[in-house]
Amino acid sequence: MPSAPAAASGAPSSTGRRGRPGYDQQTVLNVAVEVFNRHGYDATSMGILAENLGISKSAIYHHVPSKEDLLSLALEQALGGLESVWEAPESQSGRAEERLEFVVRSTVRVLTERLPFVTLLLRLRGNTETERAALERRRSFDRKVAELIAEARAEGSIRTDIDPRTASRLLFGTINSIVEWYRPGGALTPAKLADDVVAVLFDGLHTRS
Amino acid sequence: MPSAPAAASGAPSSTGRRGRPGYDQQTVLNVAVEVFNRHGYDATSMGILAENLGISKSAIYHHVPSKEDLLSLALEQALGGLESVWEAPESQSGRAEERLEFVVRSTVRVLTERLPFVTLLLRLRGNTETERAALERRRSFDRKVAELIAEARAEGSIRTDIDPRTASRLLFGTINSIVEWYRPGGALTPAKLADDVVAVLFDGLHTRS
Repeated sequence: MPSAPAAASGAPSSTGRRGRPGYDQQTVLNVAVEVFNRHGYDATSMGILAENLGISKSAIYHHVPSKEDLLSLALEQALGGLESVWEAPESQSGRAEERLEFVVRSTVRVLTERLPFVTLLLRLRGNTETERAALERRRSFDRKVAELIAEARAEGSIRTDIDPRTASRLLFGTINSIVEWYRPGGALTPAKLADDVVAVLFDGLHTRS
Repeated sequence: MPSAPAAASGAPSSTGRRGRPGYDQQTVLNVAVEVFNRHGYDATSMGILAENLGISKSAIYHHVPSKEDLLSLALEQALGGLESVWEAPESQSGRAEERLEFVVRSTVRVLTERLPFVTLLLRLRGNTETERAALERRRSFDRKVAELIAEARAEGSIRTDIDPRTASRLLFGTINSIVEWYRPGGALTPAKLADDVVAVLFDGLHTRS
């Protein structure tokens, strides 16, 4: 989805034709998302974005027609990643319990790989049409997980003393809270974090005898 | 801590001396917290508060000297509730595992009983001195829980394949996310929710054979 860099053939740092040397849409997007997360989407103007990018406002308009398009592109990176989880064969066949574990693990992976984008998604308030459409896609994702939990209950692998809606809320609470504290590049790798989340959610913190 | 209603002796609804009939500091606080949570503390002016309360700005100043005092009083209701958990005898003696379970259960109770106040606390950005002081008290609470997790590990009741910091983060992630979806007064009582959170965190979603 991101467009090719402005100067794919020449040295990227030597062309200033589209704003700052070497800037492509993905770079603009990465910076924009970081600024949205810091100041809030509503409070971020194109002027603030331009300042953070070190380019002019008109240079930003070379990459995207509006602030809302930036938001839309950013949310697509979060939602596209999350939705791709359902395309993997592991989420389509096998015991519900195993599919659910796969979905949890994959969701944590997408969340850590696309951390600022998912953070933006999770903080949306729904003030614009773009935000409401994104929230509807997020709800659709959540519903699919809730259905999987219901299937795993019916199959006998998930406890039945907890309402499936509560189970689903607590599961997403645990997963989504990762954006508040996880910092990539540290000792805790995304794979180990995914293992830990699966271990806590399915087996709990208690030792097993 | 909240002051007595303005007209403790007469009929509370018949005195308008302190703004709207029957308004006391706690009522002003309840409305203010709700408005802070809806618009964000920074974006809420005393004018917006007055509008939501249906009283004049000067009537608010009869109750509190400033917006930051309102914030401070509101955060005290969240933090005071959370900190009182450590004063109960159940959190002071016994196996670390049982103390930890008690603290988790009590934290969920405080969170559901003082939902808007804890929501405000959890959304703080730390822009003012009041906010930074509150965040420091929150961190201190979190540290005590982390120490309890470490004790429970040492005692052999908490699994050792998860780093205690990660365990603590996931535990708070699960608990704190409750403010995002729990609505009091529904079929899910605070006591059942506390049971569910303890069940998921300590025993996991899997059925046990």
